Amino acid sequence: MSSEVAGSQMSIGIGLMGLGKVGGRVAKVLQDRSEVIVQQAGCPSILKKVLVHDPAKKRDIDFHLITTRVEDIMGDPEIDIVVEVIGGEHPAWEYIKQAIFRGKHVVTANKEVMAKHGVELLALAREHEVDILYEASVGGGIPLITPLRQDLVANKISTIYAIINGTTNHILTMMSKEGLSFSPALRQAQQLGYAEANPSDDIEGRDAAYKLAILASLAFHTIVRPEDVYCEGIAFLDEHDFRYAKELGYAIKLLAIAKERNDSVEVRVHPVFIPAEFLLAKVDGVYNAVQVEGDLVGKMLFYGEGAGALPTSSAIVADIISLAQKINLKVKGSPWPLSSYCKTITPISEIETRYYIRMSIADHPGVLAQIAKALGDHLISIASVIQKESEVSTQTAEIVIMTYPAKEKAMQQALKEMEKIAVVKEIASFIRVEA
Amino acid sequence: MSSEVAGSQMSIGIGLMGLGKVGGRVAKVLQDRSEVIVQQAGCPSILKKVLVHDPAKKRDIDFHLITTRVEDIMGDPEIDIVVEVIGGEHPAWEYIKQAIFRGKHVVTANKEVMAKHGVELLALAREHEVDILYEASVGGGIPLITPLRQDLVANKISTIYAIINGTTNHILTMMSKEGLSFSPALRQAQQLGYAEANPSDDIEGRDAAYKLAILASLAFHTIVRPEDVYCEGIAFLDEHDFRYAKELGYAIKLLAIAKERNDSVEVRVHPVFIPAEFLLAKVDGVYNAVQVEGDLVGKMLFYGEGAGALPTSSAIVADIISLAQKINLKVKGSPWPLSSYCKTITPISEIETRYYIRMSIADHPGVLAQIAKALGDHLISIASVIQKESEVSTQTAEIVIMTYPAKEKAMQQALKEMEKIAVVKEIASFIRVEA
Repeated sequence: MSSEVAGSQMSIGIGLMGLGKVGGRVAKVLQDRSEVIVQQAGCPSILKKVLVHDPAKKRDIDFHLITTRVEDIMGDPEIDIVVEVIGGEHPAWEYIKQAIFRGKHVVTANKEVMAKHGVELLALAREHEVDILYEASVGGGIPLITPLRQDLVANKISTIYAIINGTTNHILTMMSKEGLSFSPALRQAQQLGYAEANPSDDIEGRDAAYKLAILASLAFHTIVRPEDVYCEGIAFLDEHDFRYAKELGYAIKLLAIAKERNDSVEVRVHPVFIPAEFLLAKVDGVYNAVQVEGDLVGKMLFYGEGAGALPTSSAIVADIISLAQKINLKVKGSPWPLSSYCKTITPISEIETRYYIRMSIADHPGVLAQIAKALGDHLISIASVIQKESEVSTQTAEIVIMTYPAKEKAMQQALKEMEKIAVVKEIASFIRVEA
Repeated sequence: MSSEVAGSQMSIGIGLMGLGKVGGRVAKVLQDRSEVIVQQAGCPSILKKVLVHDPAKKRDIDFHLITTRVEDIMGDPEIDIVVEVIGGEHPAWEYIKQAIFRGKHVVTANKEVMAKHGVELLALAREHEVDILYEASVGGGIPLITPLRQDLVANKISTIYAIINGTTNHILTMMSKEGLSFSPALRQAQQLGYAEANPSDDIEGRDAAYKLAILASLAFHTIVRPEDVYCEGIAFLDEHDFRYAKELGYAIKLLAIAKERNDSVEVRVHPVFIPAEFLLAKVDGVYNAVQVEGDLVGKMLFYGEGAGALPTSSAIVADIISLAQKINLKVKGSPWPLSSYCKTITPISEIETRYYIRMSIADHPGVLAQIAKALGDHLISIASVIQKESEVSTQTAEIVIMTYPAKEKAMQQALKEMEKIAVVKEIASFIRVEA
């Protein structure tokens, strides 16, 4: 590898896997900012090969660099760093493993691979004395991985509240500001290019769950798998909920939440009511924000564009420069970010929070008493109730209840009993409240 | 130095200079978090000596560590890292220089020393193959120096808008929310411990100017001295200004502003009107927030507690761990954060912005025409005017003008001419507007 060549003329070879929007931008930044990179890294970083699917496609890049053969990157001794921007689990995961086996450092923007296989890849990299950096996998260009691995490392982190999916935040912003219901808000996001044709990974919360698994693993020095993250999407939300939220002084956001209590970690992604005066409640559109609470730093928030080729390339090139510095200084290895033992995951039934419940009821006397009893039987106290005048034609009223903190398990049992009450026509929404 | 001892039993020796609130907390964190530090740094970091002024004072620390002799730290071959938390220019600056000369790495929280002498100290450190880290010098525990030196390094940064003085932000928050005028708001901040008995460094903007010089130097890879920063304080602000700001849809904040245009850097600290919907407008109380705009990342904001022993210790211990890692890996040197050539500083007369002007005028016909003429003669256009009904007893009216963007030089000339208009009794406030 070129890193073993001594002297000041050394250069770092880059192999780029994937030349979509992000890959194309990374290639351009490496070229346009070569002066800054030399100054920061101590030597030039040269793009040696670019792996693409379709070599015939017209591209804004020297065609000598283009290849369709993975081995052209893996087998090139002049390539020190492999940058993976293919996305998705396969074949990206296999390529990353192969790169590490061949003694190459890796920079990846791949949330799915890092969430599912990050621990194994970090261990493999350590074994082979290379690094795998993945700042771009969460929050685009917002520094999150570095702060958790480095700047905040003296802290005991207790809580992460994160808006880390721009698509859903844009949809929720439209529902809140324009009074749209879910389907037209989704369609609008799709027209603007903020939501994919098949948006299920975003709107069902899986994309956020991947990112939360990555952040929580680092914050709590443990192993959090995507399947550990309790996940609910936003498709059930209704414009009524936004109206009540406003009336009660709240905003509705899809939050990725991670908390540690007594060596047990709770990780969940679902819509929540948060007080309207919280800074997080003011994060609108496709912007992301991650609030971290540590015992020394207190509450801290990182805010910015969470996706897109430009912000993502900012994080990737910063990772490349970090690695180039280390290669240039002949440094091997980096501190292990996780703890040696695994903390337990708190099941969703054991979490404790407040709840918002919206239901349709038959407009009869004594209904509220029956609902209050179902809650009271499970030791859940009502904090406030809104009941508007009923619709005469259907003799149906809408009632909204905010509870005091209660265990999820008790709440779920109470909900089941409330469903059985004859006068309760429908439990339309059930949303957790964080304050 | 102990860093030259090979093998896994190596430890890093720390010499602490200053044992006030911050120093005391750093000592405690080093002790309480020793396990995390070993895991992250690869070896223990041991507090070897603590320099204090008064050795007789009762302290929560092993008295064997206490010394009043600087040489006990400088001359101790087992001390690898000197942590300076004395504050102020002297003797901290001399101590830091001495530590570097003796081949010791330095961690400092000293904004004044880093703003005034940072470039020279960084150069001196490079010469002696040691590092000087200063994350704690700006924004308490909020990662700012590392993001600018590392995470955002691929970006061309165009703008920094920073609320980096908690004292003034608390005072302005009280004036805005409680309708207080300046003096009672300052007194309240003093009673709460948020303002010092002599608060002039804070309220005149000098504290923010030090911090801005540090941030702008890194962001623009140039040398910005504290005396380059144009500086206005907040003492002239009046509760009337807050009422008009609200009416016009703005908040008033003391912003530290840095912009680069065509290789020229403007740096200024003064009260500004910013649109109420900006996230920065919602940063209240003693919290700090720094908004950075880069060509790749777009707008990004870092928010958190900007001062206090706990957040500051978070940044200092993170810097200690970074250095311990490097010492343990036998890495020497780090990338030079500044450019080799110095950009020019844009004089305040050359900046262009919008303006808010509040004045008392005699309630005569034709006054507005005279004012509009004074502005128009300097090619300044009026965007909006508010004139409320006049006070009958004094026959004085208050008039508020918002302008379109104009050069500061033209504005200052127009102001001089407006002062000469007989019916203009007083130009009470003149505040720049950023949007």
